[in-house]
This record gives sequence, C-alpha cells and structure tokens, in this order.
Amino acid sequence: MSSTIAIDAMGGDFGPQITVPASLECLKANPDLKLILVGDEAILNELVTQAVADFKDRLKIQHASQQVEMDEKPQTALRGKKDSSMRIAINLVRDGQADACVSAGNTGALMAIARFVLKMIPGIDRPAIISTLPSVFGHTHILDLGANVDCTAEHLYQFAIMGGEVVKAVEKIAAPKIGLLNIGEEDMKGNEQVKAAAKLLENSSLNYMGYVEGNSINAGSVKVDLIVTDGFVGNVALKSIEGAAKMIATKLKDAFSSNIFTRLAGIAAYPVLKMFKQSIDPRMYNGASFIGLRGLVIKSHGGADELAFQTAIHLAEVEIEQDVTRKISEKVATTLENREEV
Amino acid sequence: MSSTIAIDAMGGDFGPQITVPASLECLKANPDLKLILVGDEAILNELVTQAVADFKDRLKIQHASQQVEMDEKPQTALRGKKDSSMRIAINLVRDGQADACVSAGNTGALMAIARFVLKMIPGIDRPAIISTLPSVFGHTHILDLGANVDCTAEHLYQFAIMGGEVVKAVEKIAAPKIGLLNIGEEDMKGNEQVKAAAKLLENSSLNYMGYVEGNSINAGSVKVDLIVTDGFVGNVALKSIEGAAKMIATKLKDAFSSNIFTRLAGIAAYPVLKMFKQSIDPRMYNGASFIGLRGLVIKSHGGADELAFQTAIHLAEVEIEQDVTRKISEKVATTLENREEV
Repeated sequence: MSSTIAIDAMGGDFGPQITVPASLECLKANPDLKLILVGDEAILNELVTQAVADFKDRLKIQHASQQVEMDEKPQTALRGKKDSSMRIAINLVRDGQADACVSAGNTGALMAIARFVLKMIPGIDRPAIISTLPSVFGHTHILDLGANVDCTAEHLYQFAIMGGEVVKAVEKIAAPKIGLLNIGEEDMKGNEQVKAAAKLLENSSLNYMGYVEGNSINAGSVKVDLIVTDGFVGNVALKSIEGAAKMIATKLKDAFSSNIFTRLAGIAAYPVLKMFKQSIDPRMYNGASFIGLRGLVIKSHGGADELAFQTAIHLAEVEIEQDVTRKISEKVATTLENREEV
Repeated sequence: MSSTIAIDAMGGDFGPQITVPASLECLKANPDLKLILVGDEAILNELVTQAVADFKDRLKIQHASQQVEMDEKPQTALRGKKDSSMRIAINLVRDGQADACVSAGNTGALMAIARFVLKMIPGIDRPAIISTLPSVFGHTHILDLGANVDCTAEHLYQFAIMGGEVVKAVEKIAAPKIGLLNIGEEDMKGNEQVKAAAKLLENSSLNYMGYVEGNSINAGSVKVDLIVTDGFVGNVALKSIEGAAKMIATKLKDAFSSNIFTRLAGIAAYPVLKMFKQSIDPRMYNGASFIGLRGLVIKSHGGADELAFQTAIHLAEVEIEQDVTRKISEKVATTLENREEV
C-alpha cells in the first residue's frame, strides 16, 4: 500500500539539516513511501537536488514562507503563521493529499493547529498524546503525555478507548491490557477522577487490569500494554524517566572514566556497553501520536537526530498502514452507541 | 548530643530480622545514640540477648502486643491496633520519651496514626512526605511523595516552606533553591493549582527558582535543591524513576550475561560496575520524613534490608540533631505572622 506523509521540514531544533536526510533515508528504505517536504523551497531544493531525480514522483517539495518557532505561543502560531511549514503540512492531511504529518516542531503549537485544522473525532472531547517506552517486558504505551493538564474520569476513559485501538493496531494484540496510573494498587487509593475512571473502565468491554504504579511503565510487577493517566502526571512521569536514564548513563560513564584501570575495563566492556546502550536507545522510541483528531499527526522530539526522526516517520507509516484514525473513530462510535442503548 | 529513637521493630516486609540487626549496627556506630525497640518482647529479647548487655542503658525493649499488617487499612490500624508496635513507637515520641520514631511499616497506617497521635504544627493544614534522590549534581529533595492526592496552591506553598527548612537543616544550605514541578518551564504551562502556587512562591521570601520538569529530579538543566509537587504526581515520579532504574539495571545485566565473551568482559568490568552500582544504590537514599507533625517520624521502605534500614535510622539522627521539627514550627509561625501584617 502506498502512503504519503507530509514532513514539517523546518520544525525541530535542527530543521532541514535533520529532517531532509532522515526523509531521504526513509524513501530509500520503503519503495511504497511518498513524502512531501514542507518548508522554505530554496533551502529544501538545495538539500535534495540529486534526490529529487532519484525518487522522482515519490518526493515533492511544498513551499511555506513561514515557520513556527520552538518557543512561540500556540495561539500566536495558530493565528499568525498560516503559511508556516507546520500549518501547511497539517492542511495537506486535512485535504487528503497526505495520510499523515510528522513534525519535530513546537508541541503546543502543533497540537493547537492540528486541533483547529483537523477537528476532533465525534464523541471525543480532547485529543491526547500517546507514545511508547521500553520496559523489561518489551514496551509500554502511555497516554496522555501532556495535552491535557486537568482530566475528568470521562476523559481518562476516552483515552483508554483510543489508546487501546492504537496498541491493537501497532502491536497487533487483540485485547491490550490496560492499567490506570495511580499511587497504589488498592481500591481506596487515588484521587476522585482516577477512582471514577476505574469504575468506567471496570464496566467497559476493555481489557482493564486495574491500578498500576509508576514503576509499571518500565519494570512493574504486572505487565500492561497501555497505561492511562492525565497529561500532567504522564508528562512528569515521562520526563522523570528521561532524567533517571540520563543520570544513570552519566554515572556509568563516570565510573568507567575514573582512572587508567577503569578505562581499560571500559575498553574490554565496550561491545557490551554498546549493546546495552542500544537496548534502551531513546531514538528507537521517538515519535508520539496525537490521537482523537480526524487525521494522523506524529510529533518527533525537538532535539531528534537523523535516526530518531526516521523512527518518527516510520511510526507514521505503521499508523497509516494500520488505519489507526479510522479504527479509533469506529471504536468510539460503537462505544457511544452501546452507551446510548443503556 | 544524646538522642533517643523509637524503632517500630515489627514493621516492614522482614520485621525484626532486619530492624534489630540494623539497630544494633547503629548503636555501635554512634555512642550517643539510644534506641527503644518496640514490638513482641519474646521475639526481640531473643534477638538482642547479648547486645542488651553490650549497650546497657542505650538499648531498651518496649513490649507491644499487636502489629500493623502491611496491607491493613489505615483507619482499621488507627482504631483497632492501639497496642501495635507502630502506635507505641509514635506514642513514645508524643510523650517525649523518644526524639523520633522510625518504621518500615504500612505507609498509610503510619501517616494516619502519626497525624492522630502527634497532631499538626499550627498553621500547617496537611503533613507531607519528603525524601531524597540522587542527581547528577548530588541529590535532590522532593515532596510530597504520596500523603496528599489533591493539593491546593496553599498546600503546595506550605510544602515549600516546610521542605525548605528540612533541606537547610540536613544539607546545611542557607537558602535552598526551590523548584515547582510542572510540565514545562514557561509561565503559561500547568494546571490552576500550580500556577497559583507559583504566584505565592514568587511573592515569598523563599529562594524560588520557577518551574522545573520531571527530568530535574535526577538530571535537569537547572540545579534545584528541593522540588515541590502534590502527592499524586510526586509518588508517580518517584516510582517511575524506580522502574526506570530497575529496567536499566536488568538490561545492563542481560547485556553482560548474553554469552561467554560478554561474561568475560563483565569480569573485567566488575570493579567498575560495582562502583557504579554503589553510586546509585537506593539503599543509601532510604528514609522519607513525615513533616508538618509535632514530632519526627521517618518511614523506611517496607522492603529495606539491614543497610537500608540503617540509613533511615541515620536520617532520624540527623533530623534530631538539627532539630528539624522546631525549625519548621518557627518558620511556619514567622511566615504566618508576616502574612497577617500584610
């Protein structure tokens, strides 16, 4: 199946220097893939001269005269940057010229523009951000990672429905195990929203496993495929894990560089340390999906390098192939129908 | 200065098998320390026969006929276990017979009993749990770690005042740098409570540095000494970090045990890996303080081993020596006075 992805080529900390080579690599890897690079024509043309000929109709450049800055306020970007690479990439999805859009740009602006341009799936109140993290069991999907700071039980329930469809599609699991993030596994634990969301989930057709704690993201006692939480807690958990991994990597490096003997040990252990590093390489987990919208939008980490940005494009390819947006819409429609019957 | 600590000897996953030997080690290490082991007399006497003679009046046993179970509901423990080792240990603090109490027992029960028996410091609405985590800069103190699932801005402000005094006393820093945990560093980010708490902190005499993200706990771009958040977010962050560390340790071990060559590399790297492991050993960070109460209560991890439980006792020694409860009370009183003047 051929799929077309619009790339916000100007987004991210490094812009076209990263997005263009990553895009070309993806075109090489998948002969069914088509990409539209959106951004400053002059810059992009220069970077792809040879490639345009190589990939012929699989690579297009779409000019955009503006770009959204990384620290720009979402509302300013939404109102003032109608010809930005980000906006035009999303417009291409709305107009059916692209099946998904990938951007490493400003998260808040991307969410505001995506929501405004693509609109919500009927029945869903708010979009959410879902991503994947490595775990001792393989990996865990988690949402929301920051789109919604305050969530009602109903929002959390909707996140579970949507997230469940993403995990089914991406992991090819029939009934993903869903956990609700809490500060204990006992019934009495948690705040009002979480307790009420647990009731909704218990009475749903979802494969709800109960409360899980923060350690379940990477290494819990119970394996779950999807963890549901509000955007404040999810974002803090994600960044706490990033900080922990960074600290551990720093201390490991320090231990191996403390003197000549430890450096020699480091040389002996180098292939193993490299293998270990690859097993938790965050670049292999780059790419968060905005879900609940009538179109696919993948957010890459702003500081993504070429490999990480390729991972985000690859995620878009998988979600297009699996028709994630349609699956979410259908599941939401069925769930709502069943509810109205009650 | 001599200090007396009441030990809930029956608490924790391993009870007296861990708490008694850890207590004896602490008595050996500090000739000014006195301990009261609270629990089943028959069991405790058997474990300390020789030691009682060695330490003479520095080691006492106080009988308690009950013990609080690890999964017991806080209210059941509060109402039904008036002769538990936990309750009696806390009573000793209230009655001035001990300067602090250390327990590895059920957190919820310990908090409920401590709050009931010791009462709150005037001006403080809720107790909070504060602990320390390693960071690339040294370490970071964080509160609340789970006592309060819903917090107003005023609660967060009170946590900052109390936490600031703990860090001053324990770290001997004149004006600890305080960060408020949020999902971004920009003003517009966060929920209503966090934004309102930021205003209170900006207008206070505290050394408030602004918002910090989850990665600041272990490895942020800005060093802060104290991070303030509500108990839901704090607990999830703490456990997410524990999970990340466990996963990384597992993957590192897997990498070194994958074949004969990696095992040989592991032997070469063993001293370095050991040094690395020590640098992030969670046992060296065991012990969370319940603050806001009119008496010192230290909670050890339930699964603490002998070394970890010693760390918790040592934390109690430091907080007694630094007179943390009095310092918090005085700071709260001054802050309230100044407020009334406004």
